Amino acid sequence: MSGPQSTGQVPDAQGDSPPGRRDEDAKEGTQSSHRMLGFSDALLSIIATVMILPVTHTEISPEQEFDKSMQKLLATRIAVYLMTFLIVTVAWAAHIRLFQVVGKIDDTLALLNLACMMTITLLPYTFSLMVTFPDVPLGIFLFCVCVIAIGVVQVLIIGYAFHFPYLLNSQLRTSTHRAATRQHILLLVLRGPALCFAAAVFSLFFFPMSYLLMVTVIFLPYISKAASWCRDRLVGRRQPPDHGVELFASDLQEPLSKERVEAFSDGVYAIVATLLILDICEDNVPDPKDVTEKFRGSLVAALGEYGPHFLAYFGSFATVGLLWFAHHSLFLHVRKATQVMGLLNTLSLAFVGGLPLAYQQTSAFARQPRDELERVRISCAIIFFASIFQFAIWTAALLRQAETLQPAVRFGGQEHAFMFAKLALYPCASLLAFAATCLLSRFSTTIFHLMQISVPFAFLLLRLLVRLALVALRGLQSLRPARLPPGQASAADADTQSQLLPASR
Amino acid sequence: MSGPQSTGQVPDAQGDSPPGRRDEDAKEGTQSSHRMLGFSDALLSIIATVMILPVTHTEISPEQEFDKSMQKLLATRIAVYLMTFLIVTVAWAAHIRLFQVVGKIDDTLALLNLACMMTITLLPYTFSLMVTFPDVPLGIFLFCVCVIAIGVVQVLIIGYAFHFPYLLNSQLRTSTHRAATRQHILLLVLRGPALCFAAAVFSLFFFPMSYLLMVTVIFLPYISKAASWCRDRLVGRRQPPDHGVELFASDLQEPLSKERVEAFSDGVYAIVATLLILDICEDNVPDPKDVTEKFRGSLVAALGEYGPHFLAYFGSFATVGLLWFAHHSLFLHVRKATQVMGLLNTLSLAFVGGLPLAYQQTSAFARQPRDELERVRISCAIIFFASIFQFAIWTAALLRQAETLQPAVRFGGQEHAFMFAKLALYPCASLLAFAATCLLSRFSTTIFHLMQISVPFAFLLLRLLVRLALVALRGLQSLRPARLPPGQASAADADTQSQLLPASR
Repeated sequence: MSGPQSTGQVPDAQGDSPPGRRDEDAKEGTQSSHRMLGFSDALLSIIATVMILPVTHTEISPEQEFDKSMQKLLATRIAVYLMTFLIVTVAWAAHIRLFQVVGKIDDTLALLNLACMMTITLLPYTFSLMVTFPDVPLGIFLFCVCVIAIGVVQVLIIGYAFHFPYLLNSQLRTSTHRAATRQHILLLVLRGPALCFAAAVFSLFFFPMSYLLMVTVIFLPYISKAASWCRDRLVGRRQPPDHGVELFASDLQEPLSKERVEAFSDGVYAIVATLLILDICEDNVPDPKDVTEKFRGSLVAALGEYGPHFLAYFGSFATVGLLWFAHHSLFLHVRKATQVMGLLNTLSLAFVGGLPLAYQQTSAFARQPRDELERVRISCAIIFFASIFQFAIWTAALLRQAETLQPAVRFGGQEHAFMFAKLALYPCASLLAFAATCLLSRFSTTIFHLMQISVPFAFLLLRLLVRLALVALRGLQSLRPARLPPGQASAADADTQSQLLPASR
Repeated sequence: MSGPQSTGQVPDAQGDSPPGRRDEDAKEGTQSSHRMLGFSDALLSIIATVMILPVTHTEISPEQEFDKSMQKLLATRIAVYLMTFLIVTVAWAAHIRLFQVVGKIDDTLALLNLACMMTITLLPYTFSLMVTFPDVPLGIFLFCVCVIAIGVVQVLIIGYAFHFPYLLNSQLRTSTHRAATRQHILLLVLRGPALCFAAAVFSLFFFPMSYLLMVTVIFLPYISKAASWCRDRLVGRRQPPDHGVELFASDLQEPLSKERVEAFSDGVYAIVATLLILDICEDNVPDPKDVTEKFRGSLVAALGEYGPHFLAYFGSFATVGLLWFAHHSLFLHVRKATQVMGLLNTLSLAFVGGLPLAYQQTSAFARQPRDELERVRISCAIIFFASIFQFAIWTAALLRQAETLQPAVRFGGQEHAFMFAKLALYPCASLLAFAATCLLSRFSTTIFHLMQISVPFAFLLLRLLVRLALVALRGLQSLRPARLPPGQASAADADTQSQLLPASR
């Protein structure tokens, strides 16, 4: 997806090197790690998202009742999707941390990295096993084996990199505390596998315990993130010391490189957008027999059948595209992604990954109109959460705007109000649609499609408005509350609503 | 997936801007186009590849004979896959050309680009229609409509960019021939849609003609590429004039930015690698009923059933990963991708996209052992072609090494022999495996898996050898023909074999 915005922002850890230096690298046999990281991000993001396919492929034939077994199957698959997404993002964060330490790669590291990726791709399968056979310890055992394997590979990578110091990032290469740092990093990396080893042992005689341990492994990073964030909020963030172990300790507390967050997000958005067309091509090509029999050879009539599907497809693609667009605009103005922002981004992406479900929900209307209302509401909910978490990213960024944001979108900056509008559009639209379905439940589908199709124009309109009145943004700002729909008064919006009152400077 | 290697290499067309310039951009409302291009590359690469899924999902139940209808269905889907891959790469090349002219974007351009992407995603569907109803003109008509729509969006983008010149790339911004250049570019962009308009008209009364026109549209860029290449080979390449229309004309003749070729390729490799795990998770989780009935509750026994599938998965992932690795190593040393290299890369990627088929072929052994041999051979063939085209990229690069390659891998450079070994490994291995299956047809599966599993170690060994004897590369070079298997004597290898004789300097 997208690489570093500019080498200006990229630390040597990203390993960019001007063409001139390539041949030195070639002599050493080292390479810029940049493309490999991009490829890893792509792989991980696709793995994280692609498990939504089994969910959407759950066949619900028209005559068949939406019964218990079906619900159980669907729930199972959704569980697998969420767990996969969670664990993959955790593995991804660990991968970022690892390659903040390892600045350059050579072929051996590239191959080790491939091995690491391969092991990660097996995690979804262990989840499928766990969820299909909740009372058989094999699934969890295999999961633990995978995590341990990943740990081993990462230890190999670290050991190798520290053995050939020219592979380390520039700070470490010159650092005097290298040995101590290695210890520190190894401890960080081995934390998870150690817990999993215990879990694996437990799984042999008392596996509920190992489930508990697994959950700990998965949530460990998030817990520590939240904790450190709270500490930051309370104590005020500490200045990182000039060099040495502490520096790396604090670096590893802040493991998110903006470029890689962008790359990972791009991967998720791209794969979600394309999963949609896959469904279209696989399911919506009419069967020649039907065409000749039912429609007396008229293909157009046959395609007419699929009208709602295409409408749903356009709607969903527009939604994914515009959510990406909002994310893109936001991160254009982000200098540095904090842990909280990363967490919120992950949550947002998890819901974006759910959009094919929303698509399948809306396109299934034609088949079973009876539980249409529920389906529209599910779709609205998915879109709402995907977008509201994006909004939350910005809110979180504003709380530490001095370090996280470009001046333009800070509180009072000339793009501030525009960014607010961009990010508030989808939460409001989806809330509106949801509210509307409660009032006029009969037209729920129409309302939903109307929402999906009108939002793009709203975006264009926004841009035009700002073009016309870029100088008069303050005016626009005081004018906006009138333009904002009632749905606006949601929790996350409210706390920035206050911030939108003209700044006294 | 991976962005520019360094701003040093990236022309302003890529729109990178140091953090300092961000706020100017914000004032103008312009943005670096870099991330949007990465996202587009990701989208296009996934769309191009994902149509292999219907092919692999073609169910072949054990009892059912591999009969005519099945063959027809399979052929249909493969045709759709290839056509899609071809047309998407064409659209992608056009997109590159477009954003070589447009340096920076603003929100309107970003939205227009999304619209363009959306239209492109519809092309696969029109193909499905064409192939399913070859004698109904609707499919081709819709295809033409799509192409025309894409053309319209591209014209809008160009018009918009030329209307706000600060959006153009730096050369054009300062160029005096801007108007003339716009004409030139518009003509280039409208060539395809114009042909398609004719095709659409023909499709209404005499549609075979429109198929002919469609093929012209698809192959036009390739034909012109080949032509210009031949001219270059014969006349010797002409120096591009210093500035103005001619410069852009020649730029547009050379439409491949190395970064975007890498990004597109990464996308294909990443999606292919992850499609594999999707199959594993969807198909290879045993059914609880079976486990209790057939295996008396022993899940391990049930999983034993799937042994071959996992072997096949590991093999395929390793293959995809290592093909990416070879591609990565090659492009590390590529300065500039010519048209021929781009074409060869596309061909290589088309076969890489076919690897999930190879996987499904190999993993289907358990089900129907009788046509096992054919399947192994198909897999070998796919791998062979995917890798031999990679080799061809390098060969093509060597023909113009002064401009295309870093000194290290040029003929006589210290990495030359190593690169040769890297790129020759898979062609040789797959040829060997193929040959072996002809001799010992009974053990074909074993041979194939052996090949897939031994190659990674071969790669590691290669690296070690070079590590040990980097200074003695010449020696290694004269020594290699002994190490190379007989399969080596394939066409593409032969013509560089000669180049491998020690250079006299």
